[in-house]
Amino acid sequence: MRTFSDDRQLLHAPERELHNGEWVPYAECPSRMASIAARCAAEPAADFGLEPILAVHDAAYVEFLRSAHDEWLAAGRAGDAIGYAFPVVRRRALDLQRIDAKIGQFSFDASTPIAQHTWQSAYWSAQSALSALDAVAGGEPRAFALCRPPGHHAGADYMGGYCYLNNAAIVARRASAMGLGPVAILDVDYHHGNGTQDIFYADGDVFFASIHADPVTDYPFFWGHADETGEGEGAGSTLNLPLPRGTGWAGYEPALGRALEAIAHWGAKFLVVSFGADTFADDPISHFRLVTADYRRIAERIAGLGLPTVIAMEGGYAVDALAANVEEFLGGFG
Amino acid sequence: MRTFSDDRQLLHAPERELHNGEWVPYAECPSRMASIAARCAAEPAADFGLEPILAVHDAAYVEFLRSAHDEWLAAGRAGDAIGYAFPVVRRRALDLQRIDAKIGQFSFDASTPIAQHTWQSAYWSAQSALSALDAVAGGEPRAFALCRPPGHHAGADYMGGYCYLNNAAIVARRASAMGLGPVAILDVDYHHGNGTQDIFYADGDVFFASIHADPVTDYPFFWGHADETGEGEGAGSTLNLPLPRGTGWAGYEPALGRALEAIAHWGAKFLVVSFGADTFADDPISHFRLVTADYRRIAERIAGLGLPTVIAMEGGYAVDALAANVEEFLGGFG
Repeated sequence: MRTFSDDRQLLHAPERELHNGEWVPYAECPSRMASIAARCAAEPAADFGLEPILAVHDAAYVEFLRSAHDEWLAAGRAGDAIGYAFPVVRRRALDLQRIDAKIGQFSFDASTPIAQHTWQSAYWSAQSALSALDAVAGGEPRAFALCRPPGHHAGADYMGGYCYLNNAAIVARRASAMGLGPVAILDVDYHHGNGTQDIFYADGDVFFASIHADPVTDYPFFWGHADETGEGEGAGSTLNLPLPRGTGWAGYEPALGRALEAIAHWGAKFLVVSFGADTFADDPISHFRLVTADYRRIAERIAGLGLPTVIAMEGGYAVDALAANVEEFLGGFG
Repeated sequence: MRTFSDDRQLLHAPERELHNGEWVPYAECPSRMASIAARCAAEPAADFGLEPILAVHDAAYVEFLRSAHDEWLAAGRAGDAIGYAFPVVRRRALDLQRIDAKIGQFSFDASTPIAQHTWQSAYWSAQSALSALDAVAGGEPRAFALCRPPGHHAGADYMGGYCYLNNAAIVARRASAMGLGPVAILDVDYHHGNGTQDIFYADGDVFFASIHADPVTDYPFFWGHADETGEGEGAGSTLNLPLPRGTGWAGYEPALGRALEAIAHWGAKFLVVSFGADTFADDPISHFRLVTADYRRIAERIAGLGLPTVIAMEGGYAVDALAANVEEFLGGFG
């Protein structure tokens, strides 16, 4: 399968994240991508510019991502920019000056730092996704974007969960604008893709289905519950299938079947897959029990839809097994 | 002036807070209260129970405050409970299980830890406020509640900014229910009292006026802007007077005059003052330039309203000068 990435995606390297009350090493580390890149012959991403990014993300948010680390240094701080206060009620666009205020305004956690090269890596991660779309629009049945940083927790105007630009959403909106739709997004990361859901929550043009750990116990907690089904024009176009910790293939397969059935029923003509390998049994921060061979099974089921497909890499933190799991997944598409 | 406090308010002693990207010593330390208590003969607070607290705060939130530290320990953690992810969009009541999820659900920053004795101190801080109300309802012209932890950043179902239970709001609602109103709250802490504002934002029974540092540059950033004036039944019952960093008496006095004029115009019959001494020139975390003698001037202006008044202590972090500033303020009431 044609694969796209850019080495500038490796530059983003935060030192630490706040997790369960403590600083811990940043799990979404460059070696994740490097380990996969070493096993697949990736083509360099082309540059599609800012326009497809701005079709999903607010201009003020994009400007924040570009300038935040410089503003952090200008405020006399060292290291990575990190927030500590968040607008949980009456959130609205505000013209705030202090960098700490801006970080809070444009994020939902204290676990997603902006390091020196974050913007560059996020930009090229999105371009890798757009390059995969370009290949599929040009006739490839499917293509893989080796995205890093991942994207599915990022909303139109906020970052979080290691995500800055929502690669899957950028592809979905552009595919829709190109007339390739109706477009569906299938999110099989361990964590709910709350950013993707939010972007399309009132948008009837894109269907979003997600299989993930129950947010009652797992990040991102506040979104991904089964009763979230979309609103307005998007009513019924969101499908959340939360599963309990400990889920293995026996529990996963029926949920996957439900998601694929819903996507087919929706009449999707184009598919974007947010693929996380953090459903793996040995993932250090997650709690499902899929094994490497299961990724081929998931891919075979998805391929059964027969849709042109862009696969965007999301999470997966068992670095030693990550490349094998990705390879198995991509191999399942035949 | 009759003053109320309880020594159990000293038990709450978080070790550290996340501020500007780093752990720093917790500024809202027990010695703040101890320094004031040493200079004023406080009467012990009476116990008015949970009912007046539950007239302001959601029951699920109160239960969270009571149990959070035990749940934190049960999850295998040490030290103070601290959040890292926050529901910035589509916030709603959810029955979440993981302690980290609950902390995020019930807070808006990563700077307000729950330590072992937090509930006990917050409970007695509220009882001190209620005891001051009881004294004024019984005929005292005014009374001082030496509250600690402070309260004005806490909303009906969230903590933040060193605050857990909103002492001023609890007094205001109870005074209103006792028929002592119309009630006005004047907040003269350096930081905007976002929790108090939120609690009464759609409530036409209580007027809220606040003089504070412009949230464009200062915590809590997302609330306290001049265009926030209330909504629904509360439209027009919120008055925000943000002032720039560096403001001294010359800039402060006209804002105070405007706030007092608005309170009089509103027809208030009862006043609650959220008093922070962090407007002091030497406050370590704030940026106004009031001097000790200015606190007497502020109090004299407030006393000019001639209203029965409960004063609830909020912030103030220049511990060496805190007692003198409080004494000067209370002295201004004559």
